[in-house]
Amino acid sequence: MARDPNCVFCRIISAELPAQVISENESFLVFLDVAPLAEGHILVVVRQHYANLTDLPADASARLAAMLPRLGRALLEVTGAEGFNLLVNQGAAAGQSVSHLHVHLIPRKAGDGLGYRWNAGSYMEGRAAELANAYQDTLARVAAR
Amino acid sequence: MARDPNCVFCRIISAELPAQVISENESFLVFLDVAPLAEGHILVVVRQHYANLTDLPADASARLAAMLPRLGRALLEVTGAEGFNLLVNQGAAAGQSVSHLHVHLIPRKAGDGLGYRWNAGSYMEGRAAELANAYQDTLARVAAR
Repeated sequence: MARDPNCVFCRIISAELPAQVISENESFLVFLDVAPLAEGHILVVVRQHYANLTDLPADASARLAAMLPRLGRALLEVTGAEGFNLLVNQGAAAGQSVSHLHVHLIPRKAGDGLGYRWNAGSYMEGRAAELANAYQDTLARVAAR
Repeated sequence: MARDPNCVFCRIISAELPAQVISENESFLVFLDVAPLAEGHILVVVRQHYANLTDLPADASARLAAMLPRLGRALLEVTGAEGFNLLVNQGAAAGQSVSHLHVHLIPRKAGDGLGYRWNAGSYMEGRAAELANAYQDTLARVAAR
């Protein structure tokens, strides 16, 4: 299994560093974020070291996501939150601080000051159709892994 | 297939409302967000009407996520973004504005002013262990669907 000895999540996965583990199986580990945005903020990581979601094979992505509805229900029950955000940051520009793919589940309550900076725009006439065409053409070339 | 006639995403899925569709199959539809946070911001929706991720059966969550690594690669190529955020908002308190489960993929570039409000805290001695135990106990009761 691919592992990076300098990666803090690989070191948690190998139990070289401590973590409050919630759930684990042969492919994944779920633990509390040590620097939580809210009480009960959890991380789901793939044991194998993939830096990015775009590196993850489709079947591993599927197996990871199969756990998420149930984890979300547990989060709501444990924390009493009104909702949550599921967040993956890919790349430093997107806020990724550990280069080992991880899914955040962040409990939310009204007025908690968290959430995504929502600064919505709109498309000039014709631009959305151009982008949709570019996506279609690109997806026709970009294979699943 | 469950459908809500008042749901804007159900109406897009049934082609009653227009959208710039990028990809679709029997279970999912991918289209451009009409009010994008960045050029090329896309939404992945399940055709069947589930309000929330926590309502989604595990197998449907898996099938949805199997598409995401490839969609992420296409997004980076089409938009030239440095990274992206994958985001699901569950509940009004978490910023969910359409009550039909949807996954946002938001292209990111350094200095774009987007991203999650990152206001990290820490746990008092013993609190993380308490929470981890509560999660373990709850997960033992919360079944997969």
